[in-house]
Amino acid sequence: MMKEERYELRFGGAGGQGIILAAVIFAEAAGIHEGFYVCQTQSYGPEARGGRSRAEIVISSAEIDYPKVLGMDLFLAMNQTALDAYSADFKSTGILLADAALVSQVPTSRALLLPFTTIARQQLGDALAANMAALGAVGVVCGRVGLASLEKAVASRVPAKFRELNIRALHAGAEAARQQDLAALPPFIDSDEEKEV
Amino acid sequence: MMKEERYELRFGGAGGQGIILAAVIFAEAAGIHEGFYVCQTQSYGPEARGGRSRAEIVISSAEIDYPKVLGMDLFLAMNQTALDAYSADFKSTGILLADAALVSQVPTSRALLLPFTTIARQQLGDALAANMAALGAVGVVCGRVGLASLEKAVASRVPAKFRELNIRALHAGAEAARQQDLAALPPFIDSDEEKEV
Repeated sequence: MMKEERYELRFGGAGGQGIILAAVIFAEAAGIHEGFYVCQTQSYGPEARGGRSRAEIVISSAEIDYPKVLGMDLFLAMNQTALDAYSADFKSTGILLADAALVSQVPTSRALLLPFTTIARQQLGDALAANMAALGAVGVVCGRVGLASLEKAVASRVPAKFRELNIRALHAGAEAARQQDLAALPPFIDSDEEKEV
Repeated sequence: MMKEERYELRFGGAGGQGIILAAVIFAEAAGIHEGFYVCQTQSYGPEARGGRSRAEIVISSAEIDYPKVLGMDLFLAMNQTALDAYSADFKSTGILLADAALVSQVPTSRALLLPFTTIARQQLGDALAANMAALGAVGVVCGRVGLASLEKAVASRVPAKFRELNIRALHAGAEAARQQDLAALPPFIDSDEEKEV
């Protein structure tokens, strides 16, 4: 039997960027279509009125005792404000995935900047599909949830009218991530150098 | 300053009944519009492929340490299967809210059966709005999240085309709950009698 494995993701963005929908879809793909144990959480505190949103997903091969993120394996940041607000709790081997057009400063060298919003606007004609482009890239970088599972979850969560657009965005984002060389990133973050993160 | 208070809700139903959307909307209403600390969680395990879905919401006047339900104050069950599967963890003062047409056996005397699906089909012409009718009733029974806050959260989460229908369903469900006499229920469940719950 495989060693128990826990993989933790956080998505952050402005209100209206579709972070929570993306997280619900990712959780459904991982839990229903890939058979993982999954906990998916939204948390709201006093900062919730500021228009930021945050969602977390923990996937595991075994039952999940604590459902919130303890150390991020993957952090998706859709703008600079969310990146600054939610970038604590990185693992030394974690990866930051960020929207290249909306993020200018990254606090780690293990970062991939991809132009999700630009892809959505230019290739698909709707900047609102940036969340699905990001979701496709998350699938590739995470490596545990296949594009077919993400597609099925999108189809069950998105109204029929927007389904085709969203699935095309998913694929465009996945393709952008595949063109990156993950192995070229530093293998881990030096904790002294990065302790402010 | 008020005593710290934690109020815990679980929603359960068949896949496609819109339980998770209802929970996301309730959490947003409580967290963004009412100013509570809120954690909202979806969990998937080996049973996830069975077509049941479950969502939980914890709201509190103080920061939330453990985000999952420990003892339900309110359990919304949209069908018998979900009721049977998820009815553990009732508080002695908890309330069960269930769809009268889809639930026949309830494991507690502190139960309100309201015809959410019938209301949605007959008054609104779309049985799929049953989740929003249930959400309106949840707001009334919970007593902490106003209808105006729920409306705002529905407006931000539901595509424009379905907004009016969903808000009408919210009101219809709230109205059905208001016609019930909560004070007529037994004040708490005898734990000996109900320990199988």
